[in-house]
Amino acid sequence: MLSVDLNCDLGESYGIFKIGNDREVLKHITSANIACGYHAGDHNVMLETVKIAKAHDVGIGAHPGFPDLHGFGRREMKMSAKEIYNLTIYQIGALSAIAKACSTKVVHVKPHGALYNMAANDKSIADAVASAVADADPSLILFGLAGSSLVKAGNERGLQVAEEVFADRTYQPDGSLTPRTQSNAMIHDADLAISRVIRMIREGKVESVDGTDIEMKADTICIHGDEPQSLHFAVKLKAALMAEGIKVGRGWDAK
Amino acid sequence: MLSVDLNCDLGESYGIFKIGNDREVLKHITSANIACGYHAGDHNVMLETVKIAKAHDVGIGAHPGFPDLHGFGRREMKMSAKEIYNLTIYQIGALSAIAKACSTKVVHVKPHGALYNMAANDKSIADAVASAVADADPSLILFGLAGSSLVKAGNERGLQVAEEVFADRTYQPDGSLTPRTQSNAMIHDADLAISRVIRMIREGKVESVDGTDIEMKADTICIHGDEPQSLHFAVKLKAALMAEGIKVGRGWDAK
Amino acid sequence: MLSVDLNCDLGESYGIFKIGNDREVLKHITSANIACGYHAGDHNVMLETVKIAKAHDVGIGAHPGFPDLHGFGRREMKMSAKEIYNLTIYQIGALSAIAKACSTKVVHVKPHGALYNMAANDKSIADAVASAVADADPSLILFGLAGSSLVKAGNERGLQVAEEVFADRTYQPDGSLTPRTQSNAMIHDADLAISRVIRMIREGKVESVDGTDIEMKADTICIHGDEPQSLHFAVKLKAALMAEGIKVGRGWDAK
Amino acid sequence: MLSVDLNCDLGESYGIFKIGNDREVLKHITSANIACGYHAGDHNVMLETVKIAKAHDVGIGAHPGFPDLHGFGRREMKMSAKEIYNLTIYQIGALSAIAKACSTKVVHVKPHGALYNMAANDKSIADAVASAVADADPSLILFGLAGSSLVKAGNERGLQVAEEVFADRTYQPDGSLTPRTQSNAMIHDADLAISRVIRMIREGKVESVDGTDIEMKADTICIHGDEPQSLHFAVKLKAALMAEGIKVGRGWDAK
Repeated sequence: MLSVDLNCDLGESYGIFKIGNDREVLKHITSANIACGYHAGDHNVMLETVKIAKAHDVGIGAHPGFPDLHGFGRREMKMSAKEIYNLTIYQIGALSAIAKACSTKVVHVKPHGALYNMAANDKSIADAVASAVADADPSLILFGLAGSSLVKAGNERGLQVAEEVFADRTYQPDGSLTPRTQSNAMIHDADLAISRVIRMIREGKVESVDGTDIEMKADTICIHGDEPQSLHFAVKLKAALMAEGIKVGRGWDAK
Repeated sequence: MLSVDLNCDLGESYGIFKIGNDREVLKHITSANIACGYHAGDHNVMLETVKIAKAHDVGIGAHPGFPDLHGFGRREMKMSAKEIYNLTIYQIGALSAIAKACSTKVVHVKPHGALYNMAANDKSIADAVASAVADADPSLILFGLAGSSLVKAGNERGLQVAEEVFADRTYQPDGSLTPRTQSNAMIHDADLAISRVIRMIREGKVESVDGTDIEMKADTICIHGDEPQSLHFAVKLKAALMAEGIKVGRGWDAK
Repeated sequence: MLSVDLNCDLGESYGIFKIGNDREVLKHITSANIACGYHAGDHNVMLETVKIAKAHDVGIGAHPGFPDLHGFGRREMKMSAKEIYNLTIYQIGALSAIAKACSTKVVHVKPHGALYNMAANDKSIADAVASAVADADPSLILFGLAGSSLVKAGNERGLQVAEEVFADRTYQPDGSLTPRTQSNAMIHDADLAISRVIRMIREGKVESVDGTDIEMKADTICIHGDEPQSLHFAVKLKAALMAEGIKVGRGWDAK
Repeated sequence: MLSVDLNCDLGESYGIFKIGNDREVLKHITSANIACGYHAGDHNVMLETVKIAKAHDVGIGAHPGFPDLHGFGRREMKMSAKEIYNLTIYQIGALSAIAKACSTKVVHVKPHGALYNMAANDKSIADAVASAVADADPSLILFGLAGSSLVKAGNERGLQVAEEVFADRTYQPDGSLTPRTQSNAMIHDADLAISRVIRMIREGKVESVDGTDIEMKADTICIHGDEPQSLHFAVKLKAALMAEGIKVGRGWDAK
């Protein structure tokens, strides 16, 4: 039976600064990427988020990012691959202990923001992140942009990798996401977005911006949780997937 | 055979800010308390420190502190016991993953600075720290001020506890350290300091400032690493202990 | 003609973390206490907040706090008076340059959170804050809890001081605020709160919790901006003040 | 009479983390670039450094950098020109108030580390920094790499600019510094370094790495303070300049 995971970034509040709509989002996803205190989140928010994710049977993931709370981890920082390895290990470890204290465990790792993008495109950074995951715990699932350097780096190390797709984004002929600066970057038609995702899951293909089909593996779909319409889309997507006989869940749990 | 552990705070550098004399200190101690990025240390320093501690067969300990780099964790911060539990778990986890990536493991936990003092004196904070250690990994050894609330809280949770003494400090009749603000707080005579420590190990007793003997268990001795004379004292202490037939090492390793 | 200032904390967002309802609040107040990057706010938020405060003819105030973004400056931190002097100067200076770049200037200073409370109760901290204000710019108006140590310290240095009252709080016979932990700390009846404030302005008196009248000077009233009902109260208060012939504005502007 | 300024980065300690040799360096320089709490320094260190700089009659300069203590402001951060303007104003203001509290004033501004390099090469960042200086206080002297975009941006705004040269570095034919990654980046022969500097001051020229002479204006020379040999070089340079009849001092003071 075909299946696909739905993931979303959670646990991004910090001290009294609250963001996100975690309790509502958790009803609609199967994997949560939990901020680990570097770009967002803190030790209190992490523990609360782990608890509520566990209560909803949502997979707990570490979401390591650059040490840049002010820039929310979205600013590229020039760092050595060695340092990126170190900070990834650190953040996975912090969340792992918190998960253990909540009688559960971290299931996956997805790098955040600028680190995600850099790991998708730069082999040395992809290698650093994948090595960190493998060295922290080789049973962790590595989430990376479908077809990217990070997916390749994970596979090379024998990690189980979940290739991630974006329902609301278009793809270039080389499989990369069309940059948001371009007018055709986003797909605003929900039905079109959903039919594209279903084709990725069924056929492993998607039409790129030049009209040619490219290979695109969809193990997990990124859900945005920050705006009301994002959740409406998630609900609609989930219904469409189930109507198609595609199971919404973590495919790796069965293995 | 009697034995005692020698511990020292290490890994306190941060970015380009270097402090301490870690490579030299590691030759003279048996347990290292490694800063975990909150009051000092960072992901790079932690990994380097774990590596060199392992190379010297020195026990690796997490040294969690308040999130206050500027105050080096020495300033009391008013926090809930729940938050102290959370930040202790976080820091133990971060170091644990780094230790695992270096093919070793964390052996003990010693809270730092203001957190150490507050855990010694305040039952709710002692409980928070001891619970965090027990929930992170019940096989960890908890270091606490000899006879303090933290030692009691560790024992109550079934943790193996190492009671810590200070060779260069005097004790009050109630077993607490004489505050540094008092003129008789420090012992400047190295020979006297050493003979007091030996008595603690042999007899479990020490003379308090009012001349009465009090009970004082010495499982581990705190060594200062920041000044040249501190290391001279450590060398002298170690020689004296060995001459007395007291093994310098981690007593808990044998168990 | 009698007058009273209405002040509110603003500019507390940080990076992508947005809090408060600044654009709405600015319509109802006459003085804004702008966070200066230590407990909240950042260089971007500060500049934007100064601009919109200026556009609304609202007095610009520095709102220095403890360097504790995570705790929002609400946690007491043990610091020397000297350090509190230094951090107050630093924050006033940062906002002053930003105000100058916006062709305006800082008018007042109100310490934030734990620093406000500590300066109200502890003479050495009150002296440090008042000295910092006097040394940064002796023409600044110092806001402090009415009747507190901070007011006294400001007066001793020849600063113009604005005594601040809280419409929704009760007072102890000694003039201090009833701690929030006590059941009678808050005044929930808006009409009662307003009539008390008007009496403070007209007569310089308020009834304390034991029924006795105490002296209470009201130069400025603290308005909360974080909840919808707070603004409703502000609107109601303003209307009542005007109906009583009390001018809502900065009394010090006329001097 | 010809003259040249000698400047050095100072006040880079943070909390208990001490770096630099400020008290010794101050004997040999005429302008101090004081860290403002973003990449290094803190409110305490700033005040102490201003005091000792003033006591040595050394010109006080703001040394704004990226908000990156861990990377010491040496990592490039992708930021908007607007944000760079804001953070430059903030840091100048913080030091200005501290200088005022010490009865002195800020004389110059030199951006630090990655911000210095980016402002030298990127017109939009150069414009942001120069505008910030002009808006904070148009009487401030702007320090920038000789011949760089920052110098041009300062001149365009009518600021007095001090062009900075590096005695121990070679230059490319286009006037840029030879990157340190190249083997011929550094000049290790002190006598050669000194004779090159003297020629820059006398003739406004220096030989680039391809043997051709290029124009190079030397208003101020960067002195390193972090290693003993740096100060030996400073002493030797100063003696050589005086022997040549070149005054060591701030040329702009006379104007």
